[in-house]
Amino acid sequence: MKRTLGQLHEEKVFKDPVHRYIHVRDELIWKLIGTREFQRLRRIRQLGTTYLTFHGAEHSRFSHSLGVYEITRRIVEVFKGRKHWNEEERMLALSAALLHDIGHGPFSHSFEKVFGLDHEYYTRAILLGNTEVNAILRLQSEDFPKKVAEVIEKTYHDKLVVSLISSQIDADRMDYLLRDAYFTGVSYGNFDLERILRVMRPMEDGAVIKASGMHAVEDYIMSRYQMYWQVYFHPVTRSAEVILSKILHRAKHLYEADYTFQQPLTHFHSLFKGEVTVEDYIRLDEGVMQYYFQVWLQEEDQILRDLCRRFLDRKLFKYCDLLPMSEVHTLARYFKEAGIDPRYYLVIDSSSDLPYDFYRPGEKEEKLPINLWKANGDISELSTESDVVEAISGKRRTDHKLYYPADVVDGLANQELKQKIKQLLHKG
Amino acid sequence: MKRTLGQLHEEKVFKDPVHRYIHVRDELIWKLIGTREFQRLRRIRQLGTTYLTFHGAEHSRFSHSLGVYEITRRIVEVFKGRKHWNEEERMLALSAALLHDIGHGPFSHSFEKVFGLDHEYYTRAILLGNTEVNAILRLQSEDFPKKVAEVIEKTYHDKLVVSLISSQIDADRMDYLLRDAYFTGVSYGNFDLERILRVMRPMEDGAVIKASGMHAVEDYIMSRYQMYWQVYFHPVTRSAEVILSKILHRAKHLYEADYTFQQPLTHFHSLFKGEVTVEDYIRLDEGVMQYYFQVWLQEEDQILRDLCRRFLDRKLFKYCDLLPMSEVHTLARYFKEAGIDPRYYLVIDSSSDLPYDFYRPGEKEEKLPINLWKANGDISELSTESDVVEAISGKRRTDHKLYYPADVVDGLANQELKQKIKQLLHKG
Amino acid sequence: MKRTLGQLHEEKVFKDPVHRYIHVRDELIWKLIGTREFQRLRRIRQLGTTYLTFHGAEHSRFSHSLGVYEITRRIVEVFKGRKHWNEEERMLALSAALLHDIGHGPFSHSFEKVFGLDHEYYTRAILLGNTEVNAILRLQSEDFPKKVAEVIEKTYHDKLVVSLISSQIDADRMDYLLRDAYFTGVSYGNFDLERILRVMRPMEDGAVIKASGMHAVEDYIMSRYQMYWQVYFHPVTRSAEVILSKILHRAKHLYEADYTFQQPLTHFHSLFKGEVTVEDYIRLDEGVMQYYFQVWLQEEDQILRDLCRRFLDRKLFKYCDLLPMSEVHTLARYFKEAGIDPRYYLVIDSSSDLPYDFYRPGEKEEKLPINLWKANGDISELSTESDVVEAISGKRRTDHKLYYPADVVDGLANQELKQKIKQLLHKG
Amino acid sequence: MKRTLGQLHEEKVFKDPVHRYIHVRDELIWKLIGTREFQRLRRIRQLGTTYLTFHGAEHSRFSHSLGVYEITRRIVEVFKGRKHWNEEERMLALSAALLHDIGHGPFSHSFEKVFGLDHEYYTRAILLGNTEVNAILRLQSEDFPKKVAEVIEKTYHDKLVVSLISSQIDADRMDYLLRDAYFTGVSYGNFDLERILRVMRPMEDGAVIKASGMHAVEDYIMSRYQMYWQVYFHPVTRSAEVILSKILHRAKHLYEADYTFQQPLTHFHSLFKGEVTVEDYIRLDEGVMQYYFQVWLQEEDQILRDLCRRFLDRKLFKYCDLLPMSEVHTLARYFKEAGIDPRYYLVIDSSSDLPYDFYRPGEKEEKLPINLWKANGDISELSTESDVVEAISGKRRTDHKLYYPADVVDGLANQELKQKIKQLLHKG
Repeated sequence: MKRTLGQLHEEKVFKDPVHRYIHVRDELIWKLIGTREFQRLRRIRQLGTTYLTFHGAEHSRFSHSLGVYEITRRIVEVFKGRKHWNEEERMLALSAALLHDIGHGPFSHSFEKVFGLDHEYYTRAILLGNTEVNAILRLQSEDFPKKVAEVIEKTYHDKLVVSLISSQIDADRMDYLLRDAYFTGVSYGNFDLERILRVMRPMEDGAVIKASGMHAVEDYIMSRYQMYWQVYFHPVTRSAEVILSKILHRAKHLYEADYTFQQPLTHFHSLFKGEVTVEDYIRLDEGVMQYYFQVWLQEEDQILRDLCRRFLDRKLFKYCDLLPMSEVHTLARYFKEAGIDPRYYLVIDSSSDLPYDFYRPGEKEEKLPINLWKANGDISELSTESDVVEAISGKRRTDHKLYYPADVVDGLANQELKQKIKQLLHKG
Repeated sequence: MKRTLGQLHEEKVFKDPVHRYIHVRDELIWKLIGTREFQRLRRIRQLGTTYLTFHGAEHSRFSHSLGVYEITRRIVEVFKGRKHWNEEERMLALSAALLHDIGHGPFSHSFEKVFGLDHEYYTRAILLGNTEVNAILRLQSEDFPKKVAEVIEKTYHDKLVVSLISSQIDADRMDYLLRDAYFTGVSYGNFDLERILRVMRPMEDGAVIKASGMHAVEDYIMSRYQMYWQVYFHPVTRSAEVILSKILHRAKHLYEADYTFQQPLTHFHSLFKGEVTVEDYIRLDEGVMQYYFQVWLQEEDQILRDLCRRFLDRKLFKYCDLLPMSEVHTLARYFKEAGIDPRYYLVIDSSSDLPYDFYRPGEKEEKLPINLWKANGDISELSTESDVVEAISGKRRTDHKLYYPADVVDGLANQELKQKIKQLLHKG
Repeated sequence: MKRTLGQLHEEKVFKDPVHRYIHVRDELIWKLIGTREFQRLRRIRQLGTTYLTFHGAEHSRFSHSLGVYEITRRIVEVFKGRKHWNEEERMLALSAALLHDIGHGPFSHSFEKVFGLDHEYYTRAILLGNTEVNAILRLQSEDFPKKVAEVIEKTYHDKLVVSLISSQIDADRMDYLLRDAYFTGVSYGNFDLERILRVMRPMEDGAVIKASGMHAVEDYIMSRYQMYWQVYFHPVTRSAEVILSKILHRAKHLYEADYTFQQPLTHFHSLFKGEVTVEDYIRLDEGVMQYYFQVWLQEEDQILRDLCRRFLDRKLFKYCDLLPMSEVHTLARYFKEAGIDPRYYLVIDSSSDLPYDFYRPGEKEEKLPINLWKANGDISELSTESDVVEAISGKRRTDHKLYYPADVVDGLANQELKQKIKQLLHKG
Repeated sequence: MKRTLGQLHEEKVFKDPVHRYIHVRDELIWKLIGTREFQRLRRIRQLGTTYLTFHGAEHSRFSHSLGVYEITRRIVEVFKGRKHWNEEERMLALSAALLHDIGHGPFSHSFEKVFGLDHEYYTRAILLGNTEVNAILRLQSEDFPKKVAEVIEKTYHDKLVVSLISSQIDADRMDYLLRDAYFTGVSYGNFDLERILRVMRPMEDGAVIKASGMHAVEDYIMSRYQMYWQVYFHPVTRSAEVILSKILHRAKHLYEADYTFQQPLTHFHSLFKGEVTVEDYIRLDEGVMQYYFQVWLQEEDQILRDLCRRFLDRKLFKYCDLLPMSEVHTLARYFKEAGIDPRYYLVIDSSSDLPYDFYRPGEKEEKLPINLWKANGDISELSTESDVVEAISGKRRTDHKLYYPADVVDGLANQELKQKIKQLLHKG
């Protein structure tokens, strides 16, 4: 007979620098944290390559996931007993909060683009497949894993539960802003979480904010805006990201060209073949990636070797503003002439490719907007009430940059060619 | 002709969560930070396995090294122009501060014990060998690398310079207490750094503290005391450390027993043979280690596999207070009977093995004591002036524990044996 | 022979919760702090009646003035040696920063309005009159007091010096935002002061901000915006301010009507007569005011007594949104009918009367705008570069409210009249 | 029929810089806060004259009282449902916490000594007399005021309730350490309040601390120790206190000598006569005191005038270590010779007179000691378990100082006498 999970005999706490303590009273949550799939998140950094710009940003998705759980726990405490909130959904909300990032791979942004992976696919696969997480979730009920997946995929019928982890002011974003600000050391990400939690209220279609708390929410939106420009879109981080992508591209290219690697490609075979099972996927983490980058320092292929060295030793590309495409083509020609392969060493990167946004109420693929609940009972979308939010809504200022190895250019023996290249680059 | 290093055209800053900003004006420091040996410290955690107890403790020796440099820079600014301080030693003090941990390997505590390595040896080797760090240091002067090594080794003639990074109140300790407190989230490690810097004064034999600042120093010593018991000696961290040692022991044992590993042991060959060159050593980092632990999950040897799984998935050993040795021997016998190898699964660990201490003024192998400089010009050792410090000086309360896999014991089929084991363990 | 002021033998420090330490090295500054006129600022709260809304806001103009001095000291340190900055103006900038609020009286907003006083007049009078401050300033040079007055009055020829304490991003505003946030406990007032100081540069017409620091300045402007709405315009604070004004109005009215006060009006005689000498002015502080409010609790005049009781015991007026003036007049009529004097008990208050603004670059009476200094050398006004700042520039959302004693209305015996009053008030 | 007080319709919150928010859900607490006797605490500083040493220390007993209430509220939440805790005592504990300082007068330390007042007497008188506080308390039950008084006086039968506000680790001390540290800006007063609250448990004779939390309590005791030496015993604060006492002594002396004061002594009559009614007492606050000190600046008596000037303008006495009494007598003789009245200008002050202590478990008049609750169920007094606490327990290092007006001594015309005085003072 299957036992039912209940409350822990004694509450467990995790010391957390952002929320002080993370409180766990439910056996289910405690067991989920103990699974190998969840523990693996300790080996995946929350901010990918950002630690190469902000050295404090070495925190993992493990810490963040606990934080999202904790914020959700506090929201649910505020909702308890109020209309529209179904207390039976509590464990579902908490589990979805804890597991929302379970499908993320190492350096996921670059990884997914190069290998055509999709963390949402693997999230579902880990929740529903033959995993420790699935086994624990099924202790709750047979359809519980599916419900957790639906909440994370935003298809669950109770939109209020969905909104807690997928809206413009969800537990996910609130934790990452505070946490990323704490670990990078920038002051921009701070806002009054406690105040926001106090003014959140359950509604049928999702959580709303009492209008008296509008200024706290404005402050939160501004924190987002600032964090994007100061941290998430930082051009140095993007340089590291560019190099990372090029490493993966080069390795894939070599593999497809039947190049003989000196060390076994164990973890990469399925990636290169595009047949990554859940089990393969779970084995990938950032330590493993860095192992390969390190052994590739011994490879014969000069491009792969050089890119790996750049990544590990932080010899990043420099950047300038993007030039007109005709001039980029000219530059590419010069690079070839100089023996520098422009496919790997002259790279256009656009911040708009990044999975961040300020606040966009109107677009349909977007997360739920922030709604204010006025004293008279009316509901009103935030940007119609706030000048400040209106000012930045939907304005995604795309920032295009051109990345290149300044050290290589500076070292060119052909002075004339070098001059022509530098002249063009200085226009950017 | 060799160029001389000077000041940077524009000061560089690193955003740092502990010191707000880390300021670099000297070209030498900037170039040292850019070396591959220094960048490697990004891949070695400051607190080893502590992140398995305090999830925030994911910060690296890279961050800490920058912090020690920054504190030293501030001390030197206070000393500037004062008697006993030789301004020509400035670059030496800064370089030694930055590089004092350059020889640390991954999880160094366990690593050094199992493989008989010594990070002091590799520090010297990296400073003086054929490395990028050495090349940069020699730009300063031919004997500069040797001088840096001497400062770190405490043999340099100017004891004042040595004291900045090797005394009971040096830049190293001050940074790690603040930093470890920040990242773990515990409040105990805080003390008033700015106040201490304001009362430090240069003397012939080392920095002293103006007596008017005694209470700030008491607070610092108490922070140390609290951090050791709350964080550094935490029994859960020691459990992870025990498992880590046992993994390394087992792998070494298998290697020596001519066991055939399924994956190449590239990085481990020289470790197992005891012939680790500087180049081999520099390749070791914690990502690499975790790669091996992960591939060893596929090994045939059950003990290696199990220990690696425990480490990666955080299925740690439980612990009890150490029993009398006769009872430990009995337990070991029972374990064998039950098919559990006590050499790997019944482990005594003593906190006194850890490289930390509160404050011990008298012992000769110890770091320089803290001296107070009284208004009348007298110098007096701290513990003779402070009741609080006197109370904890030299009192190393050793904490012995016995570690074992509670899950395995609980799962034993032989109920009688299981009972006998549990009875003994419960006495601890 | 007059001695010249120089450096202190030893630097003096004040422990400050906002800036950690305030450093004083100049004898002049030290002596200015010791004057009776400056010490008097300890008895005048920085935020007037705000402590009745945010109980932590009990800090004085003394603390704030030290803070403005400290920020100016740091700016001047950044400017040292740079073009456009005249190091000989250092003592002038520091003195003006320290003394910029020296002419403020108790609860100055209400006080000035009721008695037609002007703190700028008294600032000048204290600097140039027969005061301790004047005597100290003259030790520097005979025309030094006049120069300090000119800087504070924005008429000094070196506009750069003026800009340090009178521009949209001056030391005054930066200190009060941080300090008021700290003492009230709201998180909105925080911004990265250290970053802003690092990007400030001297120009002929005033300090500018390197464009790379724009986001830090946006954050500062947003802090201002938030502090105004959350703290400075808070309707409860305005209620206390309304009562305070009415107390002063009533006392003045009684005096002019030859009412006999039971206790001597020592401090008020000159106020009522409109002949306040500097010496009279200096004697005024908030302790003295509260003494009078307390003794007036014993006065026969019921209105004066009631208003004083309301202020001291915090029985404030309630408020509603302002009604159309025709309805206000009807209300006033009802109040009279009910025996409540509407001149004291039905009060319109507008936030736009408050001496605060967000950011208004265009208006000519305004403080200097914030200019960005771009990498190409161009200067550009902030709101033309920042969407966020542009969104709130010049938009002074005036908030009109109607204040009244809800307790008195609720206690009316005439039920019909009470109903009519309450109906009207509920429309607001 | 008397209505019963219940829960507020909506929770009220106060923004508090120390505890973030102070939560009030009970109508009784809300009404108590609104009484004139409680509002009066806004006009009495928490740390008396300390603001003359630490300029941030301008916070009031009002803020502190709210803080003690809030901590008690949180403790009671932890106790809810546990053995030994009687939930019916909740309102009693909260009310006593809120009102524990209700009987404090202005600058109470000096005031009580000079006029033979006793704040405990007035606490009782305010609780039981004809006051707004009493009227509100009686809404709870007729004997409720008496019970609140008993809790504050430590005579209440339920010792657990008493211990929450009167033990070595009560809500009172925990709030003032955190609060005084926050407002002064010193870092020493910080400790992990949340952790301590988590490990407090109700026992019959008072709250105990789970032994696993011992280090958090050690840290709290060390904070106390540091705050006493850094803040509470600060010799400059004591200088202001000395002057304050001497003002009061002089005024009393003049009154008794039938001196004619120029301004009415309204508030002082009953003080001088020793017949202070509750109503008189409630009228006293620090604003009122400072009013008198200011008008006394115009008095003919030179000593009174001078002392008031010193207090208001912060021209404090200097100090040296106490000399042997024979030398103090010699000094007194010299002072008289020089025309300086030693009864007012040569003052011995001992820190042991101050109402603070570190930790003294053994003395019977002492507050309840801190007991640890061990895992095996045993109870053990803290200092027997902790080396650090043992080291400072009961060791009240008394610090005796001699205060005098250095400016007057320096200005003496009789050079020989001046030399003799200075020689003696320099020995101290």
